[in-house]
Amino acid sequence: MEEQQKIRNFRIRGAVSAPFTAFKPNGEINYEIIPAFCSYLKDHHFEYAYVNGTLGEGMSLTIEERKKSLEAWVEAADGKIGIIAHVGANNLRDSQVLARHAEDVGVDAIAALAPSFFKPTNEEALVEYMAAVAGMAPKTPFYYYCINYVTGIYLNAAKFLRLAKDKIPTLCGLKHSSKELTSAHSCMMVDKDRFQVMCGTDVQYITALSLGIDVPVSVAFMGDVFYNLKTAYDKGDMASAMKFQEQAQLIDTLRDRPGGAFPIAKRMFTIISGLDMGPVRLPLKDICKEQEDSLRKDIDALGLWK
Amino acid sequence: MEEQQKIRNFRIRGAVSAPFTAFKPNGEINYEIIPAFCSYLKDHHFEYAYVNGTLGEGMSLTIEERKKSLEAWVEAADGKIGIIAHVGANNLRDSQVLARHAEDVGVDAIAALAPSFFKPTNEEALVEYMAAVAGMAPKTPFYYYCINYVTGIYLNAAKFLRLAKDKIPTLCGLKHSSKELTSAHSCMMVDKDRFQVMCGTDVQYITALSLGIDVPVSVAFMGDVFYNLKTAYDKGDMASAMKFQEQAQLIDTLRDRPGGAFPIAKRMFTIISGLDMGPVRLPLKDICKEQEDSLRKDIDALGLWK
Amino acid sequence: MEEQQKIRNFRIRGAVSAPFTAFKPNGEINYEIIPAFCSYLKDHHFEYAYVNGTLGEGMSLTIEERKKSLEAWVEAADGKIGIIAHVGANNLRDSQVLARHAEDVGVDAIAALAPSFFKPTNEEALVEYMAAVAGMAPKTPFYYYCINYVTGIYLNAAKFLRLAKDKIPTLCGLKHSSKELTSAHSCMMVDKDRFQVMCGTDVQYITALSLGIDVPVSVAFMGDVFYNLKTAYDKGDMASAMKFQEQAQLIDTLRDRPGGAFPIAKRMFTIISGLDMGPVRLPLKDICKEQEDSLRKDIDALGLWK
Amino acid sequence: MEEQQKIRNFRIRGAVSAPFTAFKPNGEINYEIIPAFCSYLKDHHFEYAYVNGTLGEGMSLTIEERKKSLEAWVEAADGKIGIIAHVGANNLRDSQVLARHAEDVGVDAIAALAPSFFKPTNEEALVEYMAAVAGMAPKTPFYYYCINYVTGIYLNAAKFLRLAKDKIPTLCGLKHSSKELTSAHSCMMVDKDRFQVMCGTDVQYITALSLGIDVPVSVAFMGDVFYNLKTAYDKGDMASAMKFQEQAQLIDTLRDRPGGAFPIAKRMFTIISGLDMGPVRLPLKDICKEQEDSLRKDIDALGLWK
Repeated sequence: MEEQQKIRNFRIRGAVSAPFTAFKPNGEINYEIIPAFCSYLKDHHFEYAYVNGTLGEGMSLTIEERKKSLEAWVEAADGKIGIIAHVGANNLRDSQVLARHAEDVGVDAIAALAPSFFKPTNEEALVEYMAAVAGMAPKTPFYYYCINYVTGIYLNAAKFLRLAKDKIPTLCGLKHSSKELTSAHSCMMVDKDRFQVMCGTDVQYITALSLGIDVPVSVAFMGDVFYNLKTAYDKGDMASAMKFQEQAQLIDTLRDRPGGAFPIAKRMFTIISGLDMGPVRLPLKDICKEQEDSLRKDIDALGLWK
Repeated sequence: MEEQQKIRNFRIRGAVSAPFTAFKPNGEINYEIIPAFCSYLKDHHFEYAYVNGTLGEGMSLTIEERKKSLEAWVEAADGKIGIIAHVGANNLRDSQVLARHAEDVGVDAIAALAPSFFKPTNEEALVEYMAAVAGMAPKTPFYYYCINYVTGIYLNAAKFLRLAKDKIPTLCGLKHSSKELTSAHSCMMVDKDRFQVMCGTDVQYITALSLGIDVPVSVAFMGDVFYNLKTAYDKGDMASAMKFQEQAQLIDTLRDRPGGAFPIAKRMFTIISGLDMGPVRLPLKDICKEQEDSLRKDIDALGLWK
Repeated sequence: MEEQQKIRNFRIRGAVSAPFTAFKPNGEINYEIIPAFCSYLKDHHFEYAYVNGTLGEGMSLTIEERKKSLEAWVEAADGKIGIIAHVGANNLRDSQVLARHAEDVGVDAIAALAPSFFKPTNEEALVEYMAAVAGMAPKTPFYYYCINYVTGIYLNAAKFLRLAKDKIPTLCGLKHSSKELTSAHSCMMVDKDRFQVMCGTDVQYITALSLGIDVPVSVAFMGDVFYNLKTAYDKGDMASAMKFQEQAQLIDTLRDRPGGAFPIAKRMFTIISGLDMGPVRLPLKDICKEQEDSLRKDIDALGLWK
Repeated sequence: MEEQQKIRNFRIRGAVSAPFTAFKPNGEINYEIIPAFCSYLKDHHFEYAYVNGTLGEGMSLTIEERKKSLEAWVEAADGKIGIIAHVGANNLRDSQVLARHAEDVGVDAIAALAPSFFKPTNEEALVEYMAAVAGMAPKTPFYYYCINYVTGIYLNAAKFLRLAKDKIPTLCGLKHSSKELTSAHSCMMVDKDRFQVMCGTDVQYITALSLGIDVPVSVAFMGDVFYNLKTAYDKGDMASAMKFQEQAQLIDTLRDRPGGAFPIAKRMFTIISGLDMGPVRLPLKDICKEQEDSLRKDIDALGLWK
């Protein structure tokens, strides 16, 4: 009981980043770069890494790759940053294996999205599924990962929390990456003492703050902007906060060009950070040389990174 | 030129409500109730009525009904509140007739949505269409009415503004009722001196404010809550503002029950205001007696209106 | 009763075409071309014209234009071909006015689609709406026009027929332009003695025939191919029927290019028939000169019209 | 070269069934029932089993389960029926492992769907992905598995075939389970000598036949009806063929009730065949007792199985 209460009292404090998975030219994971990536996050105001998430192409990795990747992150983090392991998979059994593994290697929290080939058709089925995942890591805080526009699962996230309350003892909240802020707000209002809502949509940070949602999960190159935004916001300096939100919007708009938002974001990070993330994995495709040149020019034009 | 500048300098100040259209039991419009409705809006902190909009079932009215309804509102308003005439229709010619009529009867501004049976397939076509509508009311400020989840037109609203800038001299901004706040934010950033963004989604007011969007277009029973919210926000009292946003969320959630969000909202207003809005018009259907009883109970339980 | 039975016994025999509405360069309707268009249909194996339908941009016309257009078709048809008047509109009252007018000018049948800004949310509401339309033309056979991918109304058409059976005395069937053939098949099976299903998707004719649905509603340039297909099919010459279906597919594929399927179809007809349909009306946009040249070349390459 | 030609000349002759995966009450796969299932298929006019497909909940199985399941089917089939191994997975590497394994255990053909969490965004990326899968089984005929309404991947299947022609030497066609028959027809027309189109939508068999597509991939309880339908069709007895298609439609309609089409289909097979398929796997949920009783009654009422 006391143990359980301790788990539930877990709170993520500070910004979370979902790191990319770096690949070598031959398509294998570049595990060696993870310590440097970890330091980058630490240096840019992130307190947590959300490993094997969407930006990390987690769903394109094998179970073995996800385990090894998580182990490398846990080792690199070494208490400097926290680790949230994303264990969602397209079938329950893989997700369960990953949940147990995450607990075994000692992460701070786990999170899982729902399978999307066969989809849960109502909130009850979603609760049952997530209970089966979370149950494999009974000592680790659990977050539901809601990202409807990718999974195609348009269930009511607040209703999920209400139903799951008594069925998933380790449930601490959700990562709300669906774009509907009113849904995030409804989630917030379910049980403020128990559930924490992370805002997983990069460019809605100031709006999330205005609803009392203060943990962003963002792409690694947003760290400084969001830190400045939050700092201004906390001082009540709304004019500056709005200015930083506009910066975030401008950065985000760079992705909105031929080549696909995801491959562009990955390449943007390589350009901005100097850490070579390598190619994306099929079915994604890398942007071509001309697209990269144009992207590089536009990044320079923003003048935010030198 | 000077004239044109004057039109463009038009700014909506204060809250806007989109009034319902009251019907008699026989299905005819109840024009007689409009003066009382107008006073209700004035008494509940609204500065403008957005006539014949979506909540007013404008698209279910004939051209003649829309003209008569607008005339009744202009007469009732009599300078006490401003009038924005929605003139969008499913065919250009009707929209043009309505635009000219609106200018003739002397409204403060007009707004139009795009036809949605045949849809404009890119932003250029949308600009051309809206230019043809706005051109019939050359002395009246014009707003584009963007509500993608109803029309099914998912074009880039900020791109529309950029392209329309030089092509629609009377364009003053848009009513952004699509749910994507980042799109509203992008619209805001196009040209702050020229374009004004109204936020047309009831329950995102505090988030809109955090982006600098301060004109809500809302259902009539949200007036007091939004006024209180804005007052607190302007004083920097974020805790209170958030509390009022939660109230708005609770009110809005009442619509989320069997019977349909729109018919429920109309009946809610009858219950809350005491002004009998009568039935909805086909293809909408009124809620049944049991649904109304349950709704009335939940409204009472909120304890916001006595 | 007897009268009613007579109405219900109405059957469309032969192919139906949905004619384009020809516009003059100034945007006004070119009514003068209607007699020639009517002869063209007669000469190309069509027995009926479906006036003011989707291909006729009926929803982009004003009520007055639709009335005048229908009158011109009735006059031109003069018993040589039958006239089905499409009276669907975005508001019930306009649809009712058009239904009564159609009966007054003496059409063979009327058809109506459901409004799509406000959408009927279940089959019951759809029945009630259609009953209100059909009731204005109590002596005229009535068909429901189902075209879900345009209206966004995804209701069960067979369920509509079952529910409407006793509520719409003049109901004779539906024009099934939604793409799901199994839905058309379900409609067929509701009541074969009473309801007739027209197949409104150009390139599924042989498949419709295989389900026993033998009335196609098609674009005017498909007349000969469909006639040949039907003739071969009726003789049991499946090999030839399949060959003509492939021709239809090749013709249809011409629309699948930049510029938009609808504006291309309209221009195709001008090129193929020599009857100048003129421009499309906003929000549609005409294809450009290069697109037209390329289209003309591909039409020639098919070698079906000389 | 000759070897390659031989692979390409592969043709599936006769009906294909996608078998369910039977689970024990404890959730483990019931491999022991596979020989009986195999005999059932043989006895009901199926020539091939499409193992680990959608109906087999393939995407809910682990890689190890899929391998073991396939091995059990290959052993049970023993030349009596052919085996097509579905090897699609949500990540390329798993799909490659499964493709190699399928070739090693000696299947007749393999098929793969595209990953749907990250989706290929154009036909070129899809070709590249499928080439990477097929390349792991260079001696085995390969089919693309197209099922857009489940994967959310709405790419042009005919374009895929055209582009893949020279890039995937083992490509023999596709299993077209997307519902658009005109797309299947377009696929048919790409290269009739090379590509074979299987029709994967249960209740469009007669319509597929009318387009020359004669291989159905269907649920196991459709075997007899489809056999009768095909036999009548081949004799030119269209009236009987249409009657059997109506039977198929009636059977299919049984799934269209509360509980979900997939869990219902699985339970239907248990009821009809007497082979206990056991429960579905999460995130799917079994129908409840009342739903099963009502289903059983409706199956009896059809009177097709005694």
